[in-house]
Amino acid sequence: MSHVQIEIRKGAYYDSVVLMQLQRALLDEPGVLDAGVVMGTDANKEILAQNNLLTEEARSANPEDLVIAIRAESEEAARAALSRVDALLQRRQAQTQSLYRPRSLENALRQLPEAEWVLVSVPGRYAAGVARDALRLNRHVFLYSDNVPLDDEIALKRDAAAKGLLVMGPDCGTAIVNGVGLGFANKVRRGPIGMVAAAGTGLQEVSTRIHRLGGGLTHAFGTGTHDLSAAVGAITTLQALDLLARDPNTRVIVLVSKPPDPVVVEEVLRAARATGKPTVINFIGYNAPRAQDGNLFFTRTLAETAEQAVRLAEETTATVEPPDTAGFAAEQRFLRGLFSGGTLAYEALLLLRGYLPAVYSNAPLDPAYALDDPTTTREHTVLDLGADEFTVGRLHPMIDNDLRIRFLEREAADPAVAVILLDVVLGYGAHPNPAAELAPAVERVRAAAASAGRRLDVGVVVVGTDDDPQKYAEQVAMFEQAGARCFPTNADMVRWAGALVQRLTLHHRIRPVDLARIEKPFAAVNVGIETFYQSMEAQDVPVVWVDWRPPAGGNERLMSILERMKKRPS
Amino acid sequence: MSHVQIEIRKGAYYDSVVLMQLQRALLDEPGVLDAGVVMGTDANKEILAQNNLLTEEARSANPEDLVIAIRAESEEAARAALSRVDALLQRRQAQTQSLYRPRSLENALRQLPEAEWVLVSVPGRYAAGVARDALRLNRHVFLYSDNVPLDDEIALKRDAAAKGLLVMGPDCGTAIVNGVGLGFANKVRRGPIGMVAAAGTGLQEVSTRIHRLGGGLTHAFGTGTHDLSAAVGAITTLQALDLLARDPNTRVIVLVSKPPDPVVVEEVLRAARATGKPTVINFIGYNAPRAQDGNLFFTRTLAETAEQAVRLAEETTATVEPPDTAGFAAEQRFLRGLFSGGTLAYEALLLLRGYLPAVYSNAPLDPAYALDDPTTTREHTVLDLGADEFTVGRLHPMIDNDLRIRFLEREAADPAVAVILLDVVLGYGAHPNPAAELAPAVERVRAAAASAGRRLDVGVVVVGTDDDPQKYAEQVAMFEQAGARCFPTNADMVRWAGALVQRLTLHHRIRPVDLARIEKPFAAVNVGIETFYQSMEAQDVPVVWVDWRPPAGGNERLMSILERMKKRPS
Repeated sequence: MSHVQIEIRKGAYYDSVVLMQLQRALLDEPGVLDAGVVMGTDANKEILAQNNLLTEEARSANPEDLVIAIRAESEEAARAALSRVDALLQRRQAQTQSLYRPRSLENALRQLPEAEWVLVSVPGRYAAGVARDALRLNRHVFLYSDNVPLDDEIALKRDAAAKGLLVMGPDCGTAIVNGVGLGFANKVRRGPIGMVAAAGTGLQEVSTRIHRLGGGLTHAFGTGTHDLSAAVGAITTLQALDLLARDPNTRVIVLVSKPPDPVVVEEVLRAARATGKPTVINFIGYNAPRAQDGNLFFTRTLAETAEQAVRLAEETTATVEPPDTAGFAAEQRFLRGLFSGGTLAYEALLLLRGYLPAVYSNAPLDPAYALDDPTTTREHTVLDLGADEFTVGRLHPMIDNDLRIRFLEREAADPAVAVILLDVVLGYGAHPNPAAELAPAVERVRAAAASAGRRLDVGVVVVGTDDDPQKYAEQVAMFEQAGARCFPTNADMVRWAGALVQRLTLHHRIRPVDLARIEKPFAAVNVGIETFYQSMEAQDVPVVWVDWRPPAGGNERLMSILERMKKRPS
Repeated sequence: MSHVQIEIRKGAYYDSVVLMQLQRALLDEPGVLDAGVVMGTDANKEILAQNNLLTEEARSANPEDLVIAIRAESEEAARAALSRVDALLQRRQAQTQSLYRPRSLENALRQLPEAEWVLVSVPGRYAAGVARDALRLNRHVFLYSDNVPLDDEIALKRDAAAKGLLVMGPDCGTAIVNGVGLGFANKVRRGPIGMVAAAGTGLQEVSTRIHRLGGGLTHAFGTGTHDLSAAVGAITTLQALDLLARDPNTRVIVLVSKPPDPVVVEEVLRAARATGKPTVINFIGYNAPRAQDGNLFFTRTLAETAEQAVRLAEETTATVEPPDTAGFAAEQRFLRGLFSGGTLAYEALLLLRGYLPAVYSNAPLDPAYALDDPTTTREHTVLDLGADEFTVGRLHPMIDNDLRIRFLEREAADPAVAVILLDVVLGYGAHPNPAAELAPAVERVRAAAASAGRRLDVGVVVVGTDDDPQKYAEQVAMFEQAGARCFPTNADMVRWAGALVQRLTLHHRIRPVDLARIEKPFAAVNVGIETFYQSMEAQDVPVVWVDWRPPAGGNERLMSILERMKKRPS
């Protein structure tokens, strides 16, 4: 016959490591058969019940209360054990040395100013406040806590994105930054693969498999479970992809997540394409239409994801650089294609689907993006200037450059335009020397934009051969001398432009994270679970552990004992 | 302060090269800031408006009218420039020499009878008439003009197909025939790749990329934008594929088009399969289920199309010959498969889907093609003679050849049948010497067909080994001696038969174009744009330029000046 005895201590904050230690100490007391030391949530009460530790009294506890439940051989033994709670905690405290711990994040950062990261694992209802403080103090946040309200998550991430800071989480179990594991993380070799994951153990399975296959990681960013939901809109994922795109040490990117929201998935795929780097994607259970699509590789299992990444890292000897977006004015982010070739315009529209959600045209793929007036461009526009409406009673733009030059001048004067694309078709029947007329116009409009403080990129694909009357190499040289960027194929030009304007749009929405700060030797402030503090120490990472307490008191007597106990470095 | 002055000349035909030259000459007049010389379409008026050249008067012009708009420093300068229009044209005429030009296509062809081609680039509403004349005079047509009514296009192409002539276009921007570029075309090395394209600049982008990768072309046929629509039914594409299939110099075929009509796409794919040659297909934006399907290779960008074609041309050392269709009578075009093996019949039905739109069977893949009576064949039929309905109270056809021989004799007597397929399964349990009974029957039915003036092909696949009691090699030898064609596998036999009857059906619909005429040294008559005449001259091609005028007059005074001006070879 066993006997259950309960003690409830009302309204205080307790570190879960301490609760675990107290529970273990109680189990060592004479006559004790079982013990539970938990906060009074419904789930915890259910677990107590399954272990025959729940009484009517314990049932009345609320989530803010500490429930100490003991089942012993006799009522006396149970009472005796309960009476030892304070003593047990005191004894532990006596065994430990005291450690100076700052009481606020500000003080912690004064003590360790090089800490670029704040690790937050306090209970969900307090976590957003701590994260907010960290962002205010210009620090990146690893937010392990769960049960953070969604509105707080959205506000935190938007604030961070505007400041060029990362918030990994909430509910982010794992990450590896600059070789240091945060939360739950494995010891993984450094190497050329960068990861972004909204799936914690997904990240762990893939990263350890990469290691065992001989590969290694630059960084592995966790995003938290909700990042790819429609509400959050993949803010952290997009930041991390952008960071890995710019990181010269990252040659291959891996993206792992449960299936994202369908609209979000398209935006993430556009961003992944725009990195230009080989990117292995496993949206677990997502049916990709093909195994490969340009630089994107879709896999179906976590194992295959790791294998594909390692294979690509071996094959990819040079790092692909994403298009450089420096020098554009803030409002510049649109693309205008002024094509003379109908098929080239059509291919451009098709390829741009992979980079931009909407491109207008006089010959659109989707009638929803038809221009009301074919002569009036808007946002991203691709014009087929060889279409019937432009060639009635007028020579084709492959013969007569007048109309194209007029459009070029008008589009270049639009302060929202960042890049203009031209195709120049050589050969019999075409203009005898198109570059002689178009290249000076390119030079003129670029100079005009520059004097107005704007960078203006002009992409050109010359379609022709060196045996054509106009001579391919000579035409290309004239355009390059005029400051245009020439590409060997239309697809190359369009992909470059798509990636460029995708990234301009992205940087309009998120301020790029400073890569240099990520690459500094890792140092952190830990707010919350002791384990994560210990894990930093084990990795020889400078770390300060904040002596955090919930803003409003609680059971002051027990808490002071618990807090003193927490000071021991164990 | 600038001043705009307008002159409208009503209802006349003007060559667009002349309009461009007049516009440029006006820009050189003193005090002129900008000038526009265009036909009065809505799009042209909109462009005038964007260049501050549109007045109320100009707005009233209709598409048949010539609008001459001048913006000058003063009203006097504008008026002075306008008053110079006739003089400018006269001066140009004085600078040029006269060139004898025939006034009719007949006369032009009398002057250059070796011209196999007529290039047509007159305005759309007159183009069909010129093309019709060319077909009547037994000439191939390159039809650059756009805005040709669809009914005219269909009638022209049907007429041409019946006569073994090509009509490339309307709205065909480019082609390369026998090394000569038509319309807008590049100077591309000769080589083993043949192209068919319904996408003009698609053809140019792919062909120039092939050249720059070291490859080259036999011919590149344009088809015009509408050829792959349901209404036109790909007549020119099918003619061109057939021509390239028969051309021994073409080792690899490239097919480029915007996505065709779904029914038409299947027919074109069947024809491409039946060429037997490696064929790279880019139906831009078409989601092919697989990257390779037999001899078909699907690509996604124009650049990739060129690269794949060059790679295949390097790998393909021998030219694949399509099945020879000579010697069959006009009505012979059906296939009958008389299978003893159920799985072999099933595989035959599956593979034939790639070549034929409908194959009937007693065990069909699609119930729509079930035979009403399993013993009565129709059109293309594959019978499984081992199915239950044939084996009730009768030995299996692998043991007893009687039923197969009866069917063989009956099908061979059908004057619409071109090819019969047989599988012969050896091994224990099977007939001890099937060829001893079947081969004489094959010889008998072929002889009977021959004496009725029909070629009858019999395909045989022997399933067995040399260790089988019946000896594989001996059985094959007996069938070959009887005039059957033996294949190493069922798939080989079925693909051969599929390609053969596909081509018989095609030749029933289109009369094959004479390859020898295409390969004669190129010569042409040009009706329309001066540029295309100059392009022929630049390529040292014999060419006569017809002095074409619209059937009904127009503004006679200006037109006579413009026409005289057009005579200069510039």
